[in-house]
Formats: sequence, C-alpha cells, structure tokens
Amino acid sequence: MSKRTIYCGQVSEAQIGQTVTLKGWVQKRRDLGGLIFIDLRDREGIVQVVFNPDFSKEALTGAEQVRSEYVLEVTGTVVARAEAAINPNISTGKIEVEVKEMTVLNTAKTTPFYIEDGVSVSDELRLQYRYLDLRRPEMANSLKLRHQTTKTIRNYLDEQGFLDTETPYLTKSTPEGARDYLVPSRVHPGHFYALPQSPQLFKQLLMGAGFDRYYQIVRCFRDEDLRGDRQPEFTQVDIETSFLSAEEIQTMTEEMLAKVMLETKGVTLQLPLPRMSYDEAMDRYGSDKPDVRFDLELQQISDLVANSDFKVFSGAVANGGEVKAINAKGAAANYSRKDIDALGEFVGRYGAKGLAWLKVEEEGLKGPIAKFFEADAAALIERLAAEPGDLLLFVADQKSVVADALGALRGRLARDLDLIDESVFEFLWIVDWPLLEYDEENGRYTSAHHPFTMPKAEHISLLETDPGAVYAEAYDIVLNGYELGGGSLRIYQREVQEKMFAALGFTEEEAKAQFGFLLDALEYGFPPHGGIALGLDRLVMLLAGKDNIREVIAFPKNGRAADPLTEAPSEVATAQLQELALEITIEEAGE
Amino acid sequence: MSKRTIYCGQVSEAQIGQTVTLKGWVQKRRDLGGLIFIDLRDREGIVQVVFNPDFSKEALTGAEQVRSEYVLEVTGTVVARAEAAINPNISTGKIEVEVKEMTVLNTAKTTPFYIEDGVSVSDELRLQYRYLDLRRPEMANSLKLRHQTTKTIRNYLDEQGFLDTETPYLTKSTPEGARDYLVPSRVHPGHFYALPQSPQLFKQLLMGAGFDRYYQIVRCFRDEDLRGDRQPEFTQVDIETSFLSAEEIQTMTEEMLAKVMLETKGVTLQLPLPRMSYDEAMDRYGSDKPDVRFDLELQQISDLVANSDFKVFSGAVANGGEVKAINAKGAAANYSRKDIDALGEFVGRYGAKGLAWLKVEEEGLKGPIAKFFEADAAALIERLAAEPGDLLLFVADQKSVVADALGALRGRLARDLDLIDESVFEFLWIVDWPLLEYDEENGRYTSAHHPFTMPKAEHISLLETDPGAVYAEAYDIVLNGYELGGGSLRIYQREVQEKMFAALGFTEEEAKAQFGFLLDALEYGFPPHGGIALGLDRLVMLLAGKDNIREVIAFPKNGRAADPLTEAPSEVATAQLQELALEITIEEAGE
Repeated sequence: MSKRTIYCGQVSEAQIGQTVTLKGWVQKRRDLGGLIFIDLRDREGIVQVVFNPDFSKEALTGAEQVRSEYVLEVTGTVVARAEAAINPNISTGKIEVEVKEMTVLNTAKTTPFYIEDGVSVSDELRLQYRYLDLRRPEMANSLKLRHQTTKTIRNYLDEQGFLDTETPYLTKSTPEGARDYLVPSRVHPGHFYALPQSPQLFKQLLMGAGFDRYYQIVRCFRDEDLRGDRQPEFTQVDIETSFLSAEEIQTMTEEMLAKVMLETKGVTLQLPLPRMSYDEAMDRYGSDKPDVRFDLELQQISDLVANSDFKVFSGAVANGGEVKAINAKGAAANYSRKDIDALGEFVGRYGAKGLAWLKVEEEGLKGPIAKFFEADAAALIERLAAEPGDLLLFVADQKSVVADALGALRGRLARDLDLIDESVFEFLWIVDWPLLEYDEENGRYTSAHHPFTMPKAEHISLLETDPGAVYAEAYDIVLNGYELGGGSLRIYQREVQEKMFAALGFTEEEAKAQFGFLLDALEYGFPPHGGIALGLDRLVMLLAGKDNIREVIAFPKNGRAADPLTEAPSEVATAQLQELALEITIEEAGE
Repeated sequence: MSKRTIYCGQVSEAQIGQTVTLKGWVQKRRDLGGLIFIDLRDREGIVQVVFNPDFSKEALTGAEQVRSEYVLEVTGTVVARAEAAINPNISTGKIEVEVKEMTVLNTAKTTPFYIEDGVSVSDELRLQYRYLDLRRPEMANSLKLRHQTTKTIRNYLDEQGFLDTETPYLTKSTPEGARDYLVPSRVHPGHFYALPQSPQLFKQLLMGAGFDRYYQIVRCFRDEDLRGDRQPEFTQVDIETSFLSAEEIQTMTEEMLAKVMLETKGVTLQLPLPRMSYDEAMDRYGSDKPDVRFDLELQQISDLVANSDFKVFSGAVANGGEVKAINAKGAAANYSRKDIDALGEFVGRYGAKGLAWLKVEEEGLKGPIAKFFEADAAALIERLAAEPGDLLLFVADQKSVVADALGALRGRLARDLDLIDESVFEFLWIVDWPLLEYDEENGRYTSAHHPFTMPKAEHISLLETDPGAVYAEAYDIVLNGYELGGGSLRIYQREVQEKMFAALGFTEEEAKAQFGFLLDALEYGFPPHGGIALGLDRLVMLLAGKDNIREVIAFPKNGRAADPLTEAPSEVATAQLQELALEITIEEAGE
C-alpha cells in the first residue's frame, strides 16, 4: 500500500498538477467509449477519477472489473475538468484525477440498499447493516457533527476549569425514578449492580470532595419503554459546580451552548437567553418545554365566562377548573367543521372532554356556541385580539387538562398551518419549578426533578406543612420545544435532605437504607453546589435537523431495545447463569 | 453568597493589596494570643487567613466556632507576611489574607481520618469515605493528572482527524475472552446483553462504515478475579484507523504518548521508541512486557551445559528444555545462602523446580554446583561477563518455565538491589507476536491477542498446516514493565477470518452464530484497518507514580468488586427480578 496523500472529498483546484494517492469506495462507475469514470468516495466526500488507456492501460483493465463499494487505492494526477464537465454540485466538481495506478484493496457484494442520502430503506434493515447505513454522507455528517459538538463542549468546560472525571457504571440500584438495568454480581451471588440512570450522587460526592467543577460526557441507562427520542442508553453532558448561584450556572451553560451553536451551525446566540417561570410557561403555552418559535398562546378567559349560559364553560370554572382559548390567527378558512372535529378528537387524547370553537367573521362570531356569547362577544374579541378570519378554540376543564390539551393543540396547529421556521433555534430557560408533584394515583408527592433538588430558601419551612407550595432552585433549558436539559441547586445540609425525604414519604429507615451514605456525607463539610445535565443525543439531533436520536447514534437499539446487527440481547450459556446463581423462570425464552 | 474571586491555592504576591473572596475548607485552626490563623484549603491548595479584632471583631468571633473541614467563605485583603512568617513550603507562603468578613457555609463533624497526604488509613475506610479521601491533595492531584492526560490525548487525536464516536454498552455476549458482565433484558425475557470487554467489533465496523479514524475513551468491563491493577470496569483509549500500516499506527501512538509525557510530566520522549520482537523480549527478559529500566538480562547457556555432569542442566537440555542464567552484578555479598533459598522458593511459584547458583570470587566459582563447572568455568564466566562479586543464578526447565521464572526473578532482584530508577519512563514496543497460543489444558489454540488479529501476509497459508508458526501484525506498547496497550492490524477479508476461526477450533456454524455479522460485513467492501487500545488507568497510574489503579480512579471497587461507599452490589426487590423472569438459586444471598 502507498500512503494516502489526501481525502477524496478534499481534492480541489489547489492540487492541480500534483500526484495524489486516494483510498476510497466506488460510488459509481461509468464506462464511456473506452474510458472509465469512477466516483470515489471517502468520509470527506466524492472525487471523480478517470481511467484512460493514455494514462495507464493496466489501470483501465483493472477498472473494468470494479463494482460499487469496492475499496480502491488510486494514484494519479489532478487535472482541471473541461468547462462542460464541471459539476457545480460537489466541492471537487472542477477537477478530476487521471489514474496512473490502481489497486483493488477489497471487493464488495451488491449492498442491500444504495449508499446514498434519501434512499428509502426500512429502519430495521438500516440497523442490520448499520456499517453500510453509516457510509451514507448524511449519517457520517451527523456523527461528525456529534464529534464537533462534544469537542466544543469539552474545550469550553476545560477552559472554565472543569475536571473531566469518570464515575462508575456498576452502581447501586435505587427504587426512585425510572427502572434500572441490573447487572448480577458473581462474587456476591444474589446481589446486583445497577447501571446508572445518571451519575447524580457521584457528582454531588465529587463536590463534597472539593473538586469544585466536574464534568463528564457520560452514558446513562433507563429500562423504559421506548419512544422516538428515547434509547435504553443515552449520553448526558453532566456538569456540577460548587459555590455558584443558579443564575451563574445558567450563564455558564448558555455560554457553552452559544459556543456550540457558533462552532457547529455558525449561529450567534443572543445572551442571556430568555428566562420564563414554570408557572408562566404553563399558563401561556400549556407546556413546561414550550416551543416558542411560534405564537398561538393560550389565553385565560375564565373570568369572562364564569357566568356564561354555556354550562360547559361556567361549570368548569365553578368546579375549580378554567377555560382557555387559542386564537388561530387567520385559520378559520383552513379548518372545515370536519377538520375541527378531528382537532376535538386530538385534544381528547390529552384528557379534554371537548373542543369548543368559534370562527370570527365580519359580522361577528359564528359557530355552534356563538349564541352564548352574544352579550360578551366584544369582551372576548378584545381579550383574544380576534379579527375576521380567525379561528378560536376553547378547552374548559381542570387546569392540568386544559394545559395538556391546549399545549398539544398549539403544536398541532403550528404544524398544520406551517407556522414553524425550522431554521431557527429558540432556546429558553424555564425557571422557578415546583419542587414536588402530587401523584394522585399513589396519593403521595414525587420529586419534580429528583430528591436532591434544593427548595427555595424561603420555602424550606413549608416542606412539612404544605409541600405542594414549595418551589425549587431548579431550571430546565428548552430548545424548540424539547427539554434539552435540567439542573438545580442541590441540598447540601442533612436536615434539609431529611425533610425532603420525609416529604416524599420515606421513613427514616428507608431514607437511611437507600441514601445513608449521602446523608452522612452532608455532615462532613459539604459545600453549596448545583449543576445541570444536558441530553447530548437530543442536542445533536436538533442541530442535525433530525427528529429521532437514532439518527445521531452510531449503533442504536431498535424500538424493541434490540440490535438487529449483533442480535443483542441474546441467550447465554447455562454455565454463565449458574455462576451468577440465577435461573430463568420462563419455559421458552421467546422474543 | 459573594462570588469567589480566586482559588485559595492561587493567591500569590500578585494579589497583595487586593480584596479577595475565597471559599474553602478549614485545614487547620490555630489560636494565638487573640488572633486566629486558619489554613483554608480548596482544590488548588492552601492559603493562610488571619482573624484579628483590628480587621473584624465579628469575623474573629465567628472563627472561634470554626473547626476542621468547616466550609467557609472569607473576604479580606491580601498582605505580605512578615519575613519570619514566610512559609517556603507552599506556593502561597509569602502572603496571608486579613479577614474582613467570614461566613460559615457548612459545618463538619470530626472526620474519620485526617485530610492530608501520607496518612495511614485502611483502603476499606478510604473507599467508604471516598469523598473525604479525595480531598487529600495527593488524590485530587492524581485525578487532575488524569484529566490532563485525557485532554492531551483528545487534543492530539482531534488534530489528527479522529472522530470521537460512542459505541454501545449494551452489547452481545461472546464466549471468547474473559467473563462477561451480563444485563438481563426485560423486553426479551431470558435474553441478556453483555457489557463490552472492549468495543473491538464496533470499532472495526466503523472502519467498514468508512469513518477512517475513530477514537473513544471508553469504559470496558471484565468479570475477572481482581488483582492490584485490575478493576471490574476500566477505561481504554480506543483507537482504530483505516489504510495505515502497523508501523504508521505505532508512529501515531508514540507521538500521542510523547505529547502526554511532555504536557503532564515535562518529559521529552526520544522518538521513535525502541522496537523489540516478542521472541527477543522473551529471550532477553523472559517477559513480553519487559521492564528495561535495568539490565539483569537472561543469558542462554544451554550450549555450554548440554553435556554437563550436572544432570539438572544437561537433562533439561536433553528433554528439549533450556538453561538460562542471570548475572546479578556485584550482588554476591547481598545474598546469604538463606536469602538464595528464598529466591529459590520465589521462582518455584513460577513453576521452576529449583534455582541453581554460583558466586564469583577471585579464586573462581563457588557454590554447591561449582564442582560441575571446573572444566567450563572460563567459558561460563566469559558468556556471563562474570567478575568477582557477581552472583549467577540459573534455571533449567522447559522454555516457558525458564522465561517465567527468570523473568520474575529479574524483577525481584532489581527491587532487592534497588536497581530501578523510579524517575524514568522507559517505553518500548513489542512487535512480531505469535498469532496463537497453544492451550495445553484444552488441547487447542487460542488467540494471543484476539481472533480478529491479522496474520503476517506470508504466514496466512500456514494457518491450516502449522498454526503455531504463524506470526501476527500485532504490537504492544510497554512502559516500565507494564503492558500499556496492545494493537494490531485486523483481518479484513472473509476467507482469512474464516481460516482464523477454524484455527481456533470454531466450527463453521459456531463462527456464524457468534460472528456472522462480522463475516457478512467483510464482504461489503471492508477496508484494510488496524488500531490500538491503551489502558488509561494504568497509564495515569504510572504517570502519578502509584502502584494501584485504584489511586487514579475516583470511585473504584474494592478487592471483592464492591463499593463500600454506596454498598453496591446490593439486593434488589423481588418485583425487579420477576420483571426480568429471573430467580435467585441460592437460599441465602450471602456475601
């Protein structure tokens, strides 16, 4: 083998006249009257190499045997293409390489799908032949983008004095949170490690150890049922600092994101990023991760309809619920009665019992419930800034149902009406979160973030008396309607942590059994600390303009948490299980 | 809280006259005639802060309550110390901070051990209170060194066009190699993922995908019995490239190591690093990872003793074995007969049936076997360059026993005789490895590295006829007697990979069942490729001058693969096992 002198995709007019050696894959071969043209591809792009008996008969003969995806080494001279042959669509389009020598480094069978972007192939086949799928420029570019993203993040954090510190993957199972992946121990039969859902406690302990600034780009594991942007294993940019305020941590995080946006997308973020309280986000957008690339805000009209003759509205208000509306500006003509019925069905999935609507016309409000608004039409029109052509949509229900239903409807309308500018990146901090959520089903409070989140100082006393009223020093960063990450200040005093566990319904014994080591640690000079964790897969997915994190993971699992390429998970030898003192309790280990 | 303006350990004469705000831990408090001196510590070091009623009565009163490991915020003025008070041992020794304001951020109980270097504490207690152990400057420095090492490695590889690409942690179990850690699947009951022993196949597949240059600093898992430098999980600098020769990969690797040595230790490595063949290393040092910081080479004397009357020697040669010697220069006086008996016992652990010896005196050879060498003394003395005062030590046995025994003895002698300069870093490539090792016990060949290692091109035909004679395109990098990493060119053609599996005793079906996806992949235009994997823990351990990788891992496991801090592994709820269709087969889940 000769040494490669340059990547295929990087040959340009600068090399004209030079001899280059390339290694790459045959994208396409064309035979044209005694000449052969091959598009040779490597990770940086494609270049046209030309076989001509005038340059080398031997190479031409060799090229006749060559098929798609063969791996070639070619040495030749870079020449300018004739004006007519210039291809303006590729960066190497003004030149070609006249081949003097060619070696077939490896052959290839016909691939199960074409190696090019935009080819329609089933996800399963793509995963089964992932090594071919990753040859497609789109996939290779997404993974390059991922590399560039992590590199930018690391550089920023290194500059800021963060120490990249590894935490264990074989850790302790905790019943809080999502389901753990377990790892049976051979040395301690009947005992199990758990793969970490996040290194939360370890990074806090590193603050206890005085590390001051920690980061890690780290794999996390959750054995949850899968959705589009969920995988059994995912990657987190995990950050923790001591002695900083929530605001200071946010500032650092957004500086980091600004670097990422600039270096990967050439986009300059306006800092500081906007902050919005959780309550305001729920009120205006019905979501704690609002997509603010478009308006369609939720508007409160409970006061206007509290005494309405339309009992659905007045009844909801009387029952402690509320009525809110979205004004779909100018969309009256876009939605037939049938279309609106479909929207009603859509909000039903979010618990709404119905979707009321009005169309605004020059003559006034029209629609089945218009008659109830004859007296209040002007007030409603003013509140909703309604104009002829607008479609007004209403949900009346308990507060959380209204938020869920209209929050979802808002997104649906935006997509229907094409209101989303896909080229923009709208970041937003959601701050001032409630500390706890009430779990109706189990009649107890659960953490809105996690049990180590610091309550607002002025609310700590409420933990015992009115836990639902406690707000937290917590913040989420949202991008285009996706939760990109979340963080908080953490509890650093044992008494507060104990109160928190009590609010979550832990007995003292349970708290000690699960988190005794943390409670102990808090007594040995634990510093005030806080941090954030960002979902790397999601961030790169959004930067790459994709809608599934599988597109930015080299070897993801499919929707059933399996890898069609290696066929993991698989059966194992009985001897392996015996060593672990385990037995499978089902007859047929079926899929 | 005020904002910290500088780390404690970074205050210097440059800040004299300035007001600084520090956050740190109380290392020591001294009360001296109405004044209080506190050594305040953070991750960067220690600074002396002074409480004096002239600066602030309130702060002084506060300081009276302060104990070791309290977390303080202090604001004060940096002043030069009086000449007599200068402490030349610490970087902040010429200044101190006159405290104007002080806040106790957190209190601390008495710690179970002092937070300072060199304190004698049991390993178990250190791990149980790891967050305190990590406050010791020595530990914090080791982990900073680890950060700096990975940063240097990443920067080098990024510059060389390597793409940092993540591979899965939930993978397929393979019976080859060490024992896997298994992860039961809930979605596919009775099936298991395995945690990767290395991302070997995934990185090869990334080469198949045309990524050209891959790296990852990645966790690997082996469920092996633990030794000093082994942990259930460890970290690998994992590298793979396409189209490069073994030599080119070595060159890149040593450039990377040179950067690491320069940036972490200020040491300039002389490149290229020395190369030595496996056969030569075994012959001269009895080890495939020789420590070349000292001599004490093994010397062949089989030819001299083949006809000796000393039957132990001549018999060994006659039986196809050999006799080798180490000349411990000038060490005759260091070893009494009893000491030599102890050495004999030592080599016995490596399978040697005995250790013969001679002391060289002015009058000639002395010792129990001297009488057998009366005729050949001159030849032996010449061969071993023996001089009066030397101690000659011999082992006669099968080749592998001689190597093991004398290789180990060599290290022991060097330590006994203090021949090792601990300040030097002796890197060495071991090249030209045998492809296979014969496993006497099971009567079959196993891979010396792994089953994907490329045989030397000229030996491929021997795979079927004389597998033991096949050498590989493999190379290990050795530092001070430790295997730092190993790599090879990989097989990239299906036929060769099939022959390799056959040589390892796989049937065609077994090969397909385990590695069918790789065999398939090799048929779709797989490029020539190769790489290397370096043990990061070991590298940092050696850079830090430690002798156990636990000293450079933030949260390691103990010798029984458990974490005394979090108490992992632990029992889990029966419901968790039911979901996984598993049952524990032992009555008492005991330790």
